[in-house]
Amino acid sequence: MAPVTQQQSAMDDTYHLLYWPGIPGRGEHIRLVLEEAGAKYTDSAFAGGGIDEVLAFVQAKVPDDGINPQPFAPPILKHKDLVISQTPNILQYLGTRLGLVPNADNDPNSVFKVNALALTALDGLSNEPHDCHHPVATGLYYEDQKEESKRRSEDYVKNRLPKFLSHFERVLGSQWSGSGPWLSGSALSYADLVVFQCVDGVKFMFPKAMARLEREGKHAKVFALHKAVSERPRIKAYLESPRRQKYSLGIYRYYEELDNET
Amino acid sequence: MAPVTQQQSAMDDTYHLLYWPGIPGRGEHIRLVLEEAGAKYTDSAFAGGGIDEVLAFVQAKVPDDGINPQPFAPPILKHKDLVISQTPNILQYLGTRLGLVPNADNDPNSVFKVNALALTALDGLSNEPHDCHHPVATGLYYEDQKEESKRRSEDYVKNRLPKFLSHFERVLGSQWSGSGPWLSGSALSYADLVVFQCVDGVKFMFPKAMARLEREGKHAKVFALHKAVSERPRIKAYLESPRRQKYSLGIYRYYEELDNET
Repeated sequence: MAPVTQQQSAMDDTYHLLYWPGIPGRGEHIRLVLEEAGAKYTDSAFAGGGIDEVLAFVQAKVPDDGINPQPFAPPILKHKDLVISQTPNILQYLGTRLGLVPNADNDPNSVFKVNALALTALDGLSNEPHDCHHPVATGLYYEDQKEESKRRSEDYVKNRLPKFLSHFERVLGSQWSGSGPWLSGSALSYADLVVFQCVDGVKFMFPKAMARLEREGKHAKVFALHKAVSERPRIKAYLESPRRQKYSLGIYRYYEELDNET
Repeated sequence: MAPVTQQQSAMDDTYHLLYWPGIPGRGEHIRLVLEEAGAKYTDSAFAGGGIDEVLAFVQAKVPDDGINPQPFAPPILKHKDLVISQTPNILQYLGTRLGLVPNADNDPNSVFKVNALALTALDGLSNEPHDCHHPVATGLYYEDQKEESKRRSEDYVKNRLPKFLSHFERVLGSQWSGSGPWLSGSALSYADLVVFQCVDGVKFMFPKAMARLEREGKHAKVFALHKAVSERPRIKAYLESPRRQKYSLGIYRYYEELDNET
């Protein structure tokens, strides 16, 4: 469902995503959950003045509302009276509400199993790729840490990336996962959407290495999950829409000199 | 309560923490929650053969149990039939069960507010300090990335550390936090224990910078929280016990050459 364009009253059921414009970034994980669920939401990345609302939070200028702790950084989700931050936290909140935690009714611990997978994907396939182009300092330009970025990227592609892909391949081959394309049994979970976005981003960032890994076939289930998510009707429509932003200078960046094959 | 020494049957209510021996590390956040709650638990760090159980998970040798996805890395928590990983995930599981999410009965969203704070502390005051001595690669020795570590540590102490401390100072001064020493209103939450451990570790790692920051008084509420947690009767007894391990070559390390004051 398209983001609603009018800001709704605080008490209706619309979700409000606050995130930087111009990059998919960490906000993208949240967009995918909202889109897959067909939820009604607004997105500051496409709203006039949206960036001011994000900046007000980041610069600690948002007045104390008395009912929420202040967020440290975007993404931020507003829903009715609630204001929460931290990507895995928002994903869990939305995932439990929007039916993206399979088997939750039978097993109240399902959410902790899905959450562990989402956290692991974010650690190894989002935060670590980000640090590949910012190994010395987040606040410095890439150009000021190019040599260190090269070393870090080589290590990432050689050691870390296959380790994380192997982990998800193993989970996808487990009895808990079952025979379908999804991590958690027969139904899609929000962890599948996270792994999709992570694999998609790493493919953009390290196309040579990911093409080699795909050819080698050791992580076939992970690449099949990526494809299966991209074919979900609502996700497919979203990916083809202008709401799906291009990768640029966010988490996943393409620098030819970092794109090593080994 | 002291860890129980005998492995209990899988169906009793004992919690089983699996973590590396010899360092407090990420496992320490979980120990503090279990100790504050007076929960019955075992700790592989103190068990004969405990390291083999951790290694079996890390080396993907643990048989598929059919009901849990495999963990990527320790800390791992076993409780009855459940096996979960990821520090913030385990903390949330234990925190909700052990009464360390204040106001949870009145506001089911309380856990998401506490979780955001725990995740932010782990990001900025645990993962980022770790990367100070491993900026290029987790798999390389510190000695092979000393120059980069120096640059990263300078940036961390100058820019990142005060930014995260200021965030928690602001939350502690909010109406949501109230007048006591705790983040979330009148009662201790597991996020307080996380912030305690993070501040404690960063004090060990960057004693000069932390002494200066404490003197300057801009983050007085954060330092007061650290002190208040250390004075909780069960935490105090724990910190004085042999179960509290010394910092060594884990997340928080002391290298004189990284201990800059500015």
